[in-house]
Amino acid sequence: MDFTIRAATLEDCKDISRMILELAEYEKVSDQVKITQRDLEQDGFSKNPFFHGIIAEVPEHHKSREGHTKVGYSLYFYTYSSWKGRAVYMEDLYVMPEFRGKDMGKALMSKVSQLGLAAGCTQLNFTVLDWNKSSLDFYLKQGCWDVTSDLGYHCMHCEGDALEHLAQGDL
Amino acid sequence: MDFTIRAATLEDCKDISRMILELAEYEKVSDQVKITQRDLEQDGFSKNPFFHGIIAEVPEHHKSREGHTKVGYSLYFYTYSSWKGRAVYMEDLYVMPEFRGKDMGKALMSKVSQLGLAAGCTQLNFTVLDWNKSSLDFYLKQGCWDVTSDLGYHCMHCEGDALEHLAQGDL
Repeated sequence: MDFTIRAATLEDCKDISRMILELAEYEKVSDQVKITQRDLEQDGFSKNPFFHGIIAEVPEHHKSREGHTKVGYSLYFYTYSSWKGRAVYMEDLYVMPEFRGKDMGKALMSKVSQLGLAAGCTQLNFTVLDWNKSSLDFYLKQGCWDVTSDLGYHCMHCEGDALEHLAQGDL
Repeated sequence: MDFTIRAATLEDCKDISRMILELAEYEKVSDQVKITQRDLEQDGFSKNPFFHGIIAEVPEHHKSREGHTKVGYSLYFYTYSSWKGRAVYMEDLYVMPEFRGKDMGKALMSKVSQLGLAAGCTQLNFTVLDWNKSSLDFYLKQGCWDVTSDLGYHCMHCEGDALEHLAQGDL
């Protein structure tokens, strides 16, 4: 099947928002999604964007059952390692279920890697849920490395009242 | 002991580079540090910086045994969650051993949280090594949440030949 991978634009935010929800439903956390199409437009497509996006698109005659031609996406941004310098972080990688098995996920990941290397990055980082064995296997097969299992890295998170208290320095 | 927390400048890169090495030695990975003072200057203090920094500084009369007044630092940058939007990531948090127990670490973390909230972030994220129990306990006490232990998040990483292959799409 023909498909193209291209940079996301403001006009893609409606479809990205739809696919973020589809991915969250797959990961069983759709109640966690607070981000709207408008947030994506503001945060990704104004000056000093917080993220960048790429889209996998199929021709009209291959559109999805619901009529979508934008059938996959990845969001990414640049980060920094104080040991190894510039890095690219892949926040999401998603292909709609009916378009899987056509190497679209690999093409999206390849594009993020290309963009990262072009920006001088030496690493690609991302996060995967340990119960999502098919994704984990896919990534390991691409030569990626599970630094939580191998080196004991734990992801830590702070939000809400705890973050406010931290900021106030009163804990 | 008096200390100040302030934004890092180009002139701090020499001390940040020194402290990055000290932290890596503590984490037993100093051979992994490829970043030099010059890299920090280029990547953090030119247009579209890859990171920002803050410094903990003591007055001259409290300088370290080796004569340092810049005795702690944190590097941070802005990221994005497709569920919850703007986030701040704390890449490093370090205080020189002889200055610990004076709430400098908490003050640095508090400043990163303040900066994140001011930029519209709803989350602070970072990574900790699971054998580093004293740090893990410190963070949990601040209301942070270990999303690897609790939700199964694994940090994935790709670099070197594997990243080049991914970018070429030939795996």
